[in-house]
Amino acid sequence: MDKERFFIQSLIKQGVTKKLGDDGVVLAFDTWNATQYPNISNINTNTPNAKYLKAHKQLVIASDGFCEGIHFRREWLSLKDIAKKAMLVNLSDIIAMNAIPKYALLSITLPNLLAFEILEIVQGLAYIAKKYNVVFIGGDTTSGQNLAFHLSIIGALESKPLLRTGLQNKDLLYHTGKVGQSLYALKWLLRSGKISRSKRFLRFIEPTLREKFIYKVASFAHCGIDISDGVYSELNHLSTLNHLGIKLHKKSRLSQLSRHFLSGEEYELLFAIAPKHKHKLMRIAKSMRLHIQPIGYASKRGKKYKTLLWH
Amino acid sequence: MDKERFFIQSLIKQGVTKKLGDDGVVLAFDTWNATQYPNISNINTNTPNAKYLKAHKQLVIASDGFCEGIHFRREWLSLKDIAKKAMLVNLSDIIAMNAIPKYALLSITLPNLLAFEILEIVQGLAYIAKKYNVVFIGGDTTSGQNLAFHLSIIGALESKPLLRTGLQNKDLLYHTGKVGQSLYALKWLLRSGKISRSKRFLRFIEPTLREKFIYKVASFAHCGIDISDGVYSELNHLSTLNHLGIKLHKKSRLSQLSRHFLSGEEYELLFAIAPKHKHKLMRIAKSMRLHIQPIGYASKRGKKYKTLLWH
Repeated sequence: MDKERFFIQSLIKQGVTKKLGDDGVVLAFDTWNATQYPNISNINTNTPNAKYLKAHKQLVIASDGFCEGIHFRREWLSLKDIAKKAMLVNLSDIIAMNAIPKYALLSITLPNLLAFEILEIVQGLAYIAKKYNVVFIGGDTTSGQNLAFHLSIIGALESKPLLRTGLQNKDLLYHTGKVGQSLYALKWLLRSGKISRSKRFLRFIEPTLREKFIYKVASFAHCGIDISDGVYSELNHLSTLNHLGIKLHKKSRLSQLSRHFLSGEEYELLFAIAPKHKHKLMRIAKSMRLHIQPIGYASKRGKKYKTLLWH
Repeated sequence: MDKERFFIQSLIKQGVTKKLGDDGVVLAFDTWNATQYPNISNINTNTPNAKYLKAHKQLVIASDGFCEGIHFRREWLSLKDIAKKAMLVNLSDIIAMNAIPKYALLSITLPNLLAFEILEIVQGLAYIAKKYNVVFIGGDTTSGQNLAFHLSIIGALESKPLLRTGLQNKDLLYHTGKVGQSLYALKWLLRSGKISRSKRFLRFIEPTLREKFIYKVASFAHCGIDISDGVYSELNHLSTLNHLGIKLHKKSRLSQLSRHFLSGEEYELLFAIAPKHKHKLMRIAKSMRLHIQPIGYASKRGKKYKTLLWH
């Protein structure tokens, strides 16, 4: 067991946490009262002493680190691209659960940088924050040797969350887009140390989140997960969490153990639907001109997916 | 301007954040419905797919980093004590705003440690989490050279939050407890490199939070702030934020620019009340056997406190 799993297992043993399964946690409230999403400028000033931000009845919260030497190297990407990616990989957790990102808290560690370099980071953060209407409502800055972003994102849920649990027998499994580019870029970087903003590296530099698609299919999808560790790994999560095996389509590249499906940091959505919703799904994908890759289906009798991982 | 302020100023210029003043931000909901605080074991299983945590109508959220080399050195304290302090300094922000800590999200960077050392960290985190009934609902673990805790704490507000704004002319200013020990311990550490768990260092190792006192006085206190940077510094914050000067009691040690009031990381509460509530305050303090130190009062004509800082 690696030290990170050991750390979490020990916390669970202490009784102060549970393995929740999902990247984010849903905070639900007793009464439902539809409210408008306000911007930070709509701070309620009726209570003179208070800085109120209105929030939604159901929130999703997720925290993640994006750290130099672990998740990125500074020589690989511009500081602006690093900051953009730090935001995107965190937003992905919230969006994949069918929540709309609203607020961010950033605890950032800044190494010795020049003013224009700090500005590059700020511009990257602000670019994505504006694109997704996210407001920074708190956080902390510290000095340190390595650049590190520790983000907590709060999202609002308008309807039911899309979780990792909920997979049912005979559900069909798909993922959005095409995967593999991230691993390709990573290998290129480890060989040559530099990538350009050319088309083939673009998705590694700036992942495309599928928020519009997710918000549409979440009403009937049974479960979903963003592909951060690779398709194999996420299928393994779903199989274990839902106590179901997964049978792969014979023709799928997955059944040939393609390298593509080991590619992490793709941030495409892996999801499951009931067979009766197949045509509905196809209509949605077609209307958005989004490629949907069939993977296989859940099966009580199918092998647990993890056996495949051990091949 | 240091790089950390420059970072925040630049984010403000980009329009994606505001200087909110307080350590935490209040998330308020439209309708008030008193609910019980559930524990993590009360996860609502009515919705089969969901991992729901019930939450309160008003939340306070704060994020803070507690990092090796910046906030602590590993040779100064045991790993258990470091982990306890990481929790306490973050809980302090929530408690100082009159909120009850409920949930924590931890993004932790772990250096190369042995299993028993990781267990020490977990024990420290769990000790404080259990003491304050806080549950870890999310987070992330990464590897890195330096140990760093990035915590987001979510607290529930049962009544109005205690903010840094709200100071009124002629309000009386106090702080809880006695300050100075933290600076003393720090100087000792910088000289000798080691402290014991003796009485004079105990508050540096494990700050005493004043939750019971705060929850009682918050109903009539006009503003409050936890002393993390020192009494001088916090008075300066209050003075600037509230556009009021502060006149010091002539006999107070503060007016003699005592080193005690430069001591940060005290986590005592600095707060203000209307003069008419003085006796009520004294009764509460006496019933809790808590020392309350008078500092001075707010004055329209008094010098802005910051001029004192420049002496």
